[in-house]
Amino acid sequence: MIPQFAPKRLIRKQCLPRTHYILHILRGQIRLKGSTVFSGMQPTGVAHLGNYLGALSAWGQLSASTPQQFDNTIFSIVDMHALTVPPPPDKLREYKRTAAALIIASGVDPEKCILYVQSEVSGHAEMCWILSCFSDFGYLNRMTQWKSKMNLTENSSVTDDAAVQNLRLGLFSYPVLQAADILLYKATHVPVGEDQIQHVELTRHIGKRFNSAYDTKVFPLPDVLLTRTPRVMSLRDPAKKMSKSDPAEQSRIMINDPPELIRYKIKRAITDGDRSVTYDPANRPGVANLIDMVAGLQNRTPDDVAEDVKGFRGHAELKEFVADVITKELQSVRENFERLSRDPEYLDRLLRSGAERAREIAQATLKEVKTIVGIY
Amino acid sequence: MIPQFAPKRLIRKQCLPRTHYILHILRGQIRLKGSTVFSGMQPTGVAHLGNYLGALSAWGQLSASTPQQFDNTIFSIVDMHALTVPPPPDKLREYKRTAAALIIASGVDPEKCILYVQSEVSGHAEMCWILSCFSDFGYLNRMTQWKSKMNLTENSSVTDDAAVQNLRLGLFSYPVLQAADILLYKATHVPVGEDQIQHVELTRHIGKRFNSAYDTKVFPLPDVLLTRTPRVMSLRDPAKKMSKSDPAEQSRIMINDPPELIRYKIKRAITDGDRSVTYDPANRPGVANLIDMVAGLQNRTPDDVAEDVKGFRGHAELKEFVADVITKELQSVRENFERLSRDPEYLDRLLRSGAERAREIAQATLKEVKTIVGIY
Repeated sequence: MIPQFAPKRLIRKQCLPRTHYILHILRGQIRLKGSTVFSGMQPTGVAHLGNYLGALSAWGQLSASTPQQFDNTIFSIVDMHALTVPPPPDKLREYKRTAAALIIASGVDPEKCILYVQSEVSGHAEMCWILSCFSDFGYLNRMTQWKSKMNLTENSSVTDDAAVQNLRLGLFSYPVLQAADILLYKATHVPVGEDQIQHVELTRHIGKRFNSAYDTKVFPLPDVLLTRTPRVMSLRDPAKKMSKSDPAEQSRIMINDPPELIRYKIKRAITDGDRSVTYDPANRPGVANLIDMVAGLQNRTPDDVAEDVKGFRGHAELKEFVADVITKELQSVRENFERLSRDPEYLDRLLRSGAERAREIAQATLKEVKTIVGIY
Repeated sequence: MIPQFAPKRLIRKQCLPRTHYILHILRGQIRLKGSTVFSGMQPTGVAHLGNYLGALSAWGQLSASTPQQFDNTIFSIVDMHALTVPPPPDKLREYKRTAAALIIASGVDPEKCILYVQSEVSGHAEMCWILSCFSDFGYLNRMTQWKSKMNLTENSSVTDDAAVQNLRLGLFSYPVLQAADILLYKATHVPVGEDQIQHVELTRHIGKRFNSAYDTKVFPLPDVLLTRTPRVMSLRDPAKKMSKSDPAEQSRIMINDPPELIRYKIKRAITDGDRSVTYDPANRPGVANLIDMVAGLQNRTPDDVAEDVKGFRGHAELKEFVADVITKELQSVRENFERLSRDPEYLDRLLRSGAERAREIAQATLKEVKTIVGIY
């Protein structure tokens, strides 16, 4: 049998992932039979509030719903992805433990979930190679992340000489490694933010292409669990996302900021000249950002929170309230994070046993896939 | 330390490999201290005379010079490369054993060399990912093999939309896997044909780039051992290379052709109308091809062979002589090949033990490299 490929049109249609809001799924307490949740996080140091609300807190909730709702929940610290823009080696080593501490402190139970470091499982790279032989070059060219990392516009293309001048292969091809991460565990649900939906779509595309080339169903096509987080914005400029790379430290709340520092940063947050307290993201982004943070931390809608705070007299009272909520909600995360950070041996032990469990699943899938293509 | 990259100009200069003719090296009986020879061959079924003279017979000779001249000699059956144009799975499985039988029948001693199947050693894929983060996209775009496999001209580029339309990532990025194959074993000498020199150059480029990014000498930059083989041409059309994909079976001598069949094919080989026997590749390619084959098989120069045959009366006598040489030189190869082909358990055992030895070296290099980049 020579692999036959399904026509492009057919594939494209089947590759749009179904998208569920995590919160809806979790509140619905639906039992998802045969489900495997997979998600990955790059080790980039201590998280800020945006990282926490965008991924970590959702991971904690997914962990709490395992195994009642999800059969398997797998979280990976994706250090191989970090190499696409190579960080200082010592930092990378350190940040792997930091990531583990953050994830567990955010509520992921390493007994119920599998938590491990990507490079400890050779199957990721092996699957990546196999899948790269089934990955459309043109499709990868349409992905946006390599462009944003190179400060290019979304319309840039490898058909533009200037665009590829400093491009390294890894940065271009890493969505295939991401697809390999997901398909290696036959994940059915992938929690991501909105900007990552295109990667799940590519994963489905590659999975579908492989399945139909060999007339198999080895890869389930994963759905998206959307972490509907308010985009947390900079405290110094509510038009920009909160970011680790912002030189102004006061622009972000770090997960391990002590309460006084959080209070200080919130107090200095840029709002606007209107003393009233209303939720109007378009016209009053600074105030809306504060309300969004509270909504995210309390798992409520911004409108609900706005209702609570509309009687406040001025921004000072609002800020005091917001600082209270943040310090309260982050307190256990911060305490757990600091406790865990003081125990690297414990983290290493956890990651080692996580890698063993991950390796078992990965090896089984890889053996199946290698047999299908004929290299086993 | 943030990786610093050496300027391009400097790198380019240091990436031209030194090129030695294998025969010169072997005849010189130079002891190459700290040397590791590495080469790979795709499993594509039974070999023809072109494959034999282009690679297999050289491998046999390299094996015979190990460990007197070379410290380590490693041969890989590169099934992961075969996936860039996915073959029927059952064929691929079968061809791995065929390749092993061919290699051993051609004189490679599996006790003295390491002979193994690439996909059995996960380090190839792992190293490939790491190196892809240090591989110039633009450099890969200048490589020619993905273009020839897609029937594109050498001037084609990913900057041409039509060129990439059916391109898969694996076919574009496989020179990086090839670099990983070589660097994983810290090979110092890579026996290749002329068309593959560019891949060794890329390997040096990537190795150099990595070494200077991390201020290390982890990767030696390999030299080329050129298998100066006469390009063996088709017996039916001396303007084309002898090829497995030629529909005319009489265009090629297969390693396992019985003597009568070899005699028959040579007898029918296209020459020209001039009854004399002279060596003139430009004007008399058919006759020159016959002389080249003898020269290759006897490790002599075509001019030496031409001297022997110049008194022959007509092509019939030449062809009889050529057929005699081929059947005689190939006899033991054919017999060994057929004996080995009847013993798949023996081949599997050999390949398993080869993989174990390869894995040991690969793991050591990989650990070193992972430590350098900070993922170990």
